[in-house]
Amino acid sequence: MSRLSVDRRVLRVGPTGARERPDRLAVEEPLELRINGTAATVTMRTPGHDIELALGFLAGEGIIAGPEDVVNARHCADTTTYNIIDVTLAREFERDTVVRSFATTSACGVCGKESIEDVRVGGAFVLADDAARIGVGTLLALPDLLRERQRTFDRTGGLHAAALFGTDGRLLVVREDVGRHNAVDKVVGWALANGHRPGRGLVLQVSGRASFELVQKAYLAGIPMLSAVSAPSSLAVDLARDVDLTLAGFVRGDSLNLYSRPERVELGETPAQDITADEVATLPAEAHDHAPAEVR
Amino acid sequence: MSRLSVDRRVLRVGPTGARERPDRLAVEEPLELRINGTAATVTMRTPGHDIELALGFLAGEGIIAGPEDVVNARHCADTTTYNIIDVTLAREFERDTVVRSFATTSACGVCGKESIEDVRVGGAFVLADDAARIGVGTLLALPDLLRERQRTFDRTGGLHAAALFGTDGRLLVVREDVGRHNAVDKVVGWALANGHRPGRGLVLQVSGRASFELVQKAYLAGIPMLSAVSAPSSLAVDLARDVDLTLAGFVRGDSLNLYSRPERVELGETPAQDITADEVATLPAEAHDHAPAEVR
Repeated sequence: MSRLSVDRRVLRVGPTGARERPDRLAVEEPLELRINGTAATVTMRTPGHDIELALGFLAGEGIIAGPEDVVNARHCADTTTYNIIDVTLAREFERDTVVRSFATTSACGVCGKESIEDVRVGGAFVLADDAARIGVGTLLALPDLLRERQRTFDRTGGLHAAALFGTDGRLLVVREDVGRHNAVDKVVGWALANGHRPGRGLVLQVSGRASFELVQKAYLAGIPMLSAVSAPSSLAVDLARDVDLTLAGFVRGDSLNLYSRPERVELGETPAQDITADEVATLPAEAHDHAPAEVR
Repeated sequence: MSRLSVDRRVLRVGPTGARERPDRLAVEEPLELRINGTAATVTMRTPGHDIELALGFLAGEGIIAGPEDVVNARHCADTTTYNIIDVTLAREFERDTVVRSFATTSACGVCGKESIEDVRVGGAFVLADDAARIGVGTLLALPDLLRERQRTFDRTGGLHAAALFGTDGRLLVVREDVGRHNAVDKVVGWALANGHRPGRGLVLQVSGRASFELVQKAYLAGIPMLSAVSAPSSLAVDLARDVDLTLAGFVRGDSLNLYSRPERVELGETPAQDITADEVATLPAEAHDHAPAEVR
């Protein structure tokens, strides 16, 4: 059995009664990240691709910018579990950097605008001049391509997925995790270790929503496009606009929303589906009419 | 307009072309938590019920056990935003407590078993002797009751919800947030401020999945039952079993899974729906057959 899932006995209760049966669950285990020998943070994650997760996390915190900042990254040798990663940086490291995250110490208060400014200043790459273009039909196909790959692994209903695609729809990497952020960290860590730093001309596709932090991770990795199956948050949209990242949301079936830098999506290429104009016309003018069950 | 949502212009692309229109987004803003005057952490959250969020967060970290541990909790007076909460504890506070979370410093490694032990030791309440019982029909109705309330507010598709119910299906409180953990923190903070500490005889219903951290939060709040619309993780199930919390997952329509302490759910009361036995029989023996789109 893969380390992604594990079986547990469960009491299944339905209209005809209850019976015990095995249930497949997504594995969640703690991972301790040590930087230069000192414990920096613990995250709950699905085991596998831990080094990518660690590298992606450090990139997303702005602690490393590329492979040249890392001397060594490995599982801790003197343990029987595989739940500690030791990363040796090419420089000194002040533990407070991870801890602080983007906390401010200013007396005038923290707000979304300041958070965006913090992220923008910390970015090593400029997305504005990334001339990548993707056809709308290709973009609309990415969630299904992700799902196909995800289905191979996920029989638990408990894993999020993230993937990197080329603008031609070619899949570069897909990763799964109980945590949305971890799945993205693993993908970003893979990109960093495989010469895609910055991630010019790539699309990051995620299986759920787009939060501020996911846009931040894409931006800091130099990836110009983020596509989400579900809703973005307000600050995700604001940050995407500020850093010139193309943000697509509700990418489902034959339609999607473009929240920023829409010119990277070529609308000339129309989706193949045969849908009547009525189906678009029935969309509410100012709010989505999907059930909260769609939230991810 | 509520602070829960905000409008942004968006390019909606469908099979008949693209047009600009307003789109309603879930609001995400940073909240800085100060403890005894010192910045402790920043979380991204949906504004509203911030003091409950702060109290629930501190309870979930084991930093406070009840209202008696808090002298004062208020929005920082000298700011124009409402994104800083100042909590004054009844005792000294070492900032490292928040930071450490459940990081271990043991050389032998961190593992799920140790995480569970850490949480168990940190708990102020024993759930084993909570004699609460809920009828299966009542339990099955909670997701819809939550959704009805959630729909009132959420037109964005981007908010998670959490609620506390009595075993008779009476709703005590419901809270929404872009973050699953925040929604639960707000509910726990409400319980703490309103005399439900411990949350004996209550059910915590969440709109998404059940992770280790959500079980931890319920346990530390003394709530004996956690019900999730989607999947639990492996460590969520392991922790629930260890601390005698009743964990229900995939609570949808006329069926649900009980992962631990099933005796709190009275199966005698059968659901009202008229479903044939075939529909249960077609369930796969060892894995869920739902699409990854169900992950939340």
